[in-house]
Amino acid sequence: MVRLLDGNKIAQEIQDELKRKVEKLKVKGITPKLMTVMVGKDPASVSYLRRIEKAFADVGIFVELLELPENITQERLEKSILEINRDEKIHGILLQMPLPSHINIIKLSELINPNKDIDCINPINVGLFLLGYPRFEPCTPLAVYEILRRNDVNLEGKEVVVVGAAGRVGRLITLLLIRKGATVTACDITTRDLAKYTRNAEILISAVGKPRLITADMVKDDAVVIDVGVSRIEDPEMPGKFKIVGDVDFDAVKEKVSAITPVPGGVGPVTTAMLISNMVKATEMLSISHVKGDQV
Amino acid sequence: MVRLLDGNKIAQEIQDELKRKVEKLKVKGITPKLMTVMVGKDPASVSYLRRIEKAFADVGIFVELLELPENITQERLEKSILEINRDEKIHGILLQMPLPSHINIIKLSELINPNKDIDCINPINVGLFLLGYPRFEPCTPLAVYEILRRNDVNLEGKEVVVVGAAGRVGRLITLLLIRKGATVTACDITTRDLAKYTRNAEILISAVGKPRLITADMVKDDAVVIDVGVSRIEDPEMPGKFKIVGDVDFDAVKEKVSAITPVPGGVGPVTTAMLISNMVKATEMLSISHVKGDQV
Repeated sequence: MVRLLDGNKIAQEIQDELKRKVEKLKVKGITPKLMTVMVGKDPASVSYLRRIEKAFADVGIFVELLELPENITQERLEKSILEINRDEKIHGILLQMPLPSHINIIKLSELINPNKDIDCINPINVGLFLLGYPRFEPCTPLAVYEILRRNDVNLEGKEVVVVGAAGRVGRLITLLLIRKGATVTACDITTRDLAKYTRNAEILISAVGKPRLITADMVKDDAVVIDVGVSRIEDPEMPGKFKIVGDVDFDAVKEKVSAITPVPGGVGPVTTAMLISNMVKATEMLSISHVKGDQV
Repeated sequence: MVRLLDGNKIAQEIQDELKRKVEKLKVKGITPKLMTVMVGKDPASVSYLRRIEKAFADVGIFVELLELPENITQERLEKSILEINRDEKIHGILLQMPLPSHINIIKLSELINPNKDIDCINPINVGLFLLGYPRFEPCTPLAVYEILRRNDVNLEGKEVVVVGAAGRVGRLITLLLIRKGATVTACDITTRDLAKYTRNAEILISAVGKPRLITADMVKDDAVVIDVGVSRIEDPEMPGKFKIVGDVDFDAVKEKVSAITPVPGGVGPVTTAMLISNMVKATEMLSISHVKGDQV
């Protein structure tokens, strides 16, 4: 029998734990506040931020949205970030992607206060993560790890294949799982005969964004499959309507594996829970350093 | 016939190219200067820094050594770094490892001026490297890549195995080769049946530091073998004397592979050449920004 790795359930568990931490912070008079920054009005971003806001609110965290015009200059956007950095009432910053093409994202990421960088995009936080001294850990890799950990899937010595490993998220997943003792094979578009690798995977992770990339014949019997891909396709059963699917041909693959995450309802909600977890961590760190600061 | 990937020859080629760049800088009145910082007097560090100094001198770069006492405080060491950061006559900083155990290396690394960080240890530079926007690239991974590139070994789609991938250098090599389009399997001490993986490798890289870890039976016919390991062992032919060896059982492995790096004389000298290359890059960047600064 296949085990469905229910991301909503795991996310709920994590968020219940976080809720208790937020209550403790509130007792101390600290109300965590996240500032999300959106440039332009990408419809997918709007609906994503609405979901984020709701999830944060459920845990007791206040989210404010800063909407900026599509044609904002780099300089003005940098100024906004610096203002948020300085605001002691704000404990976390989420810079919503995509940004317009005239914006230098790396330069902007470097400006985000590393202690408020809950999405782990400032290169200094990415570097600390790679070096094994993370301040924050990137949310999607952490979600993949949490799903495995909370389902008692031990990683040490396991044969893991990451498909889409050359992308930003794929690279970070690969790194995290190497650090956790897995033997990871990093595949991508240049890999010849992808199936040769995926068929050996005890744990198969796909982070490409290409529907039905992973078919049943590519998967080992009793493997654990984590689907990080997200694509929006026209629903074959309801022409004109769209639905969200992953990289894995779910209905066929679930018949032969031991465990699998659905899309939606798998990695996605746990990633949001990890973002909230980083937010609580940021608030705790900032409130400790403020108390320390007062004593000096 | 096995091809010996001669690191000394490649390093000399690179250093000849760099020498011409340094001459151009000198014509402009800029003399690159590297400051090496050594805490305590580890004998291996002393001899390493002597080699570095000679290699840099051959290219026309002046190296100054700052020797600090073993019992220096974190605060005093940080002050030294900040002074070097500010000194406009110094274009590069090399912080020699190991540091005493009472020193917080990460905190110190974060202080190194990212534009002078030619060894790529500041987390911000590590992060930029991971994100694919490198300011500097770490020298050993770059050396591995240069050896392959200068010997026309194409990486795209190649089956690469990195042994020792959980270590700092191994992780960075893994990342760089993923970015170059290779299909990389990251193995380490937790890997069950290491030989199963290494036998499939078209390119095998070992970065462990364990003599004779890679024996002939573990290597595929006609593979390319890059030995990043460095160990000091007693010379069996001269009891009481020591010699440097790699991870690979060189004499046996060279009989079945198509190309191999020796130890010493393989990755080591090319790594030094990459350090000099970063130094020249740092000097060029700093001199451009100073000229710009003057015009403001």
